[in-house]
Amino acid sequence: MPELRKDPITSRWVIVNIENPKSAESFERVVHAKSSKTCPFCPGNEALTPPEIWAFRRKGSKNISDWQVRVVPNKFPALRIEESTEKYAMGVYDKIGGFGAHEVIIENPDHHREMAELSDEEMELILRAYRERCLDLKKDPRFKYILIFKNYGALAGASLEHPHSQLIALPIVPSRVMGEVKGAAHHFEYTDRCIFCDMLDLERTERKLTVIEEGGFVAFAPFVSRFPFETWVLPKNHEASFDATPDTSLKMLASVLRKTLLKMKRTLHDPSFNLMIHTIPVHGKELESFHWHIEIIPHLTQVAGFEWGTGFYVNPTPPELAAQVLRNQSVE
Amino acid sequence: MPELRKDPITSRWVIVNIENPKSAESFERVVHAKSSKTCPFCPGNEALTPPEIWAFRRKGSKNISDWQVRVVPNKFPALRIEESTEKYAMGVYDKIGGFGAHEVIIENPDHHREMAELSDEEMELILRAYRERCLDLKKDPRFKYILIFKNYGALAGASLEHPHSQLIALPIVPSRVMGEVKGAAHHFEYTDRCIFCDMLDLERTERKLTVIEEGGFVAFAPFVSRFPFETWVLPKNHEASFDATPDTSLKMLASVLRKTLLKMKRTLHDPSFNLMIHTIPVHGKELESFHWHIEIIPHLTQVAGFEWGTGFYVNPTPPELAAQVLRNQSVE
Repeated sequence: MPELRKDPITSRWVIVNIENPKSAESFERVVHAKSSKTCPFCPGNEALTPPEIWAFRRKGSKNISDWQVRVVPNKFPALRIEESTEKYAMGVYDKIGGFGAHEVIIENPDHHREMAELSDEEMELILRAYRERCLDLKKDPRFKYILIFKNYGALAGASLEHPHSQLIALPIVPSRVMGEVKGAAHHFEYTDRCIFCDMLDLERTERKLTVIEEGGFVAFAPFVSRFPFETWVLPKNHEASFDATPDTSLKMLASVLRKTLLKMKRTLHDPSFNLMIHTIPVHGKELESFHWHIEIIPHLTQVAGFEWGTGFYVNPTPPELAAQVLRNQSVE
Repeated sequence: MPELRKDPITSRWVIVNIENPKSAESFERVVHAKSSKTCPFCPGNEALTPPEIWAFRRKGSKNISDWQVRVVPNKFPALRIEESTEKYAMGVYDKIGGFGAHEVIIENPDHHREMAELSDEEMELILRAYRERCLDLKKDPRFKYILIFKNYGALAGASLEHPHSQLIALPIVPSRVMGEVKGAAHHFEYTDRCIFCDMLDLERTERKLTVIEEGGFVAFAPFVSRFPFETWVLPKNHEASFDATPDTSLKMLASVLRKTLLKMKRTLHDPSFNLMIHTIPVHGKELESFHWHIEIIPHLTQVAGFEWGTGFYVNPTPPELAAQVLRNQSVE
């Protein structure tokens, strides 16, 4: 029997196939293309990127190859810091100049070592780069939202192979973010509770959706997962802003995130995936109702006309099953 | 310079690359897999589908192979008519039984003749099937929304090759549909005008986005296109409901829709695409503010982490350019 489930944050509905679920094994393996061109993100090729914005080095100075994590402007940015923030109307349409920031976080010097294969310490440095860039960009009041995301594999839209994440800072709060923030605020309004904390509380008694619970962080399959093996990682204690995470917690988060990605990689044959950090808007006031979290979406199915036409998703793998499979996957 | 454009219906933002646009030629050609298994939709194999719901025949009776268009229940339905519509809560979550209808419209008997290659008369029969199924399903008051869509090609999520469309009738109005209906109602509230009619009016003076204008219908590239070569087809005269289209107009629509698809096919090397009819919800009261339309999305780019994280889209091909290329494409 299919079941319709409603997301309590966004009011989005998902049809979950609980009768005849699609297993991890049944998804096709996708081979990632290996490029042979000169990689602009490899050590020694630092001159091929725009000038460095931030880097973590154990010793030494800028633009030499002893970095562990390196942040540079995107060479082909979707938005640019030099553009205007001027708003104007054209008939019934609104427009803004293409102002924004678009950065690339080069995650480690090794072209072939993906996040899932790093040490916890190496992973922590990436998270620290994320946080430092957010804190720095927030100083510019023109930015309303900062999104950090990672596209891995061709099906997820990755165009370069060297392990990297991206950051886009926007002059407006995007509609999907507003939907989430408002949905959570609505729940808070009549319960005085955070909806994300409520979800974690419910799971504490149900114990069906947890993948990892460790050191203040939880990786779990949301009850209203849109996609097979969709997984969220979030802090157990309420916190609205990712960039408020202290060093000690970043270390814990690094471990949980790395293990989650390794479990996915092993269970689903190294799938393409998108990873997005959902944090409160820069000037957001919803500190009590919003709870930052990381969403990981492996690309195992195609989004088709039904999803585009309705915003409804059809998920062939119940999250209870996905969580069980990922929970049991060894990371040794 | 990139430009941010806001959709006046849904408040969705799109970043349009107007500086260095991606041309039609630069999108990769995708080869569609040809399956060799017995096709359940081909004439002679009628027994392989569930019992026929509707068909158009020039003569003769049910379940014999002289049909022109044939509608059958989906053998692997996302939702089923026998399921309950019971609603219940589970902690913070809401659930509904998997009630709904999921039908397949087999567009023509020939396994290899796609929509773009049909005659206007054949295309008209498909549209008539769409309309008749909507009118019939609307008699059941449990249905709140009826979506008709088509997935063509592997990248668009098509799993069977024989030309077909799908219909899903839902017990709730999906969030994306509600967003569109509410956005249009909001515009009407303070202008007393339909936002879609306003968009057509503006284009009547600008003349930059039109692909085809013929017999009461317009095919055009929306100013806030999310995807390269996204194209909408809609009636010039205000009408909220697709199923109110009379026979004479269906004939015109068939011609415009077929030509639009042929232009896309020739310009973009037979791309995968999704086609969705956006019509007013079954019990919708927004007859003055909502305007039915068909959205066609060719799959030329991958939706990536930025889009999933924000609901923002990045469109590398300005719709002005897409419209110009499609407008100039011959359909002879």
